[in-house]
Amino acid sequence: MSRPCIEFWFEFASTYSYLTVMRIGEAARKAGVDVEWKPFLLGPVFLALGWNDSPFNIYPPKGRYMWRDLERLAAKYGQPFRKPSGFPRNSLLAARVALVGADEGWVERFSRAAMKANFADDRDISQHEVIADILAREGLDAEAVIGRAQSDANKLALRCQTERAAELGLFGAPSFRVDGELFWGNDRLEDALAWARGEHPAPVMR
Amino acid sequence: MSRPCIEFWFEFASTYSYLTVMRIGEAARKAGVDVEWKPFLLGPVFLALGWNDSPFNIYPPKGRYMWRDLERLAAKYGQPFRKPSGFPRNSLLAARVALVGADEGWVERFSRAAMKANFADDRDISQHEVIADILAREGLDAEAVIGRAQSDANKLALRCQTERAAELGLFGAPSFRVDGELFWGNDRLEDALAWARGEHPAPVMR
Repeated sequence: MSRPCIEFWFEFASTYSYLTVMRIGEAARKAGVDVEWKPFLLGPVFLALGWNDSPFNIYPPKGRYMWRDLERLAAKYGQPFRKPSGFPRNSLLAARVALVGADEGWVERFSRAAMKANFADDRDISQHEVIADILAREGLDAEAVIGRAQSDANKLALRCQTERAAELGLFGAPSFRVDGELFWGNDRLEDALAWARGEHPAPVMR
Repeated sequence: MSRPCIEFWFEFASTYSYLTVMRIGEAARKAGVDVEWKPFLLGPVFLALGWNDSPFNIYPPKGRYMWRDLERLAAKYGQPFRKPSGFPRNSLLAARVALVGADEGWVERFSRAAMKANFADDRDISQHEVIADILAREGLDAEAVIGRAQSDANKLALRCQTERAAELGLFGAPSFRVDGELFWGNDRLEDALAWARGEHPAPVMR
């Protein structure tokens, strides 16, 4: 029998994706579930909904709430957090690099380091030199990786993955897919893992 | 020492408020926390954000997701659920009646019955006769209660409560307030109760 598996869709500029990137590895290992890491870009998905910026910027009460909620949740999970001086940061390069990492087996460590750079150390992950530094600290050949990340084939692969996200009905990040079921938000990680393990509560009949 | 207390802000047309109305009583009693029930209207709050309808209707992918998410969560909590044939239902009368119930000590039983009527039995809670029937089954003098609910003083009180919600930064329902902290969504009920009990995780320093 094959191990249960979930797709993990995340975006490097997304605050709640930060929380999940930092905790999904351990949670999934404990649950005996494999994780397929799916970096994508929320920008085009949001544009299709009519938003040309993060909804947390478009709707100030939601934004004010989110930053405080994030502080509280990071404390609860024991994760460091500092509000970035720019939000949302352009995540194109990070997502392209992560897609290479998904192929080459180092997507989790790169994603954790890049998320921490953005949301705990206030580093501008849109910058080539910041991403190169993160890769080098992970023991990777930074320029070679960035070269593969910026290849036409990899650029196209990220575009396709982002289009696929919209086709699948995703409208935010993080999201999880399991057996055709969509779960949205860091809050649903545990439910998605349970679903992957075959725990499907039966509806109550009236 | 006084018992810890949370404010519970809810809206009868709100799907996630249904989940919380049905479970907050038991969860709060177990946690040793008192609940102050605060019915309000989301309509004016949404209008101030530029939405003239439920965001679940304005943004179809969010709406499709929400209905499935609600089915799954209702099953997980062991609550009955049937998608209402109209959404969102006009909740003005139910909110006015609940406000009277908050004064008179029967807000929880009325709110549970009205929520179940809307989200499990597909009854149109905007109708006078539906609300009257719910009140009568709770052993209340339906017409007398509705008379108090429709008094000028009570109408004004609901308007003030709704304006207060917006002033406090609420942008959705259910929401919880504890010691000036705002928690949004059925997913945050447990965190709000823990906060009321003085459990405030410390931030991680870098």
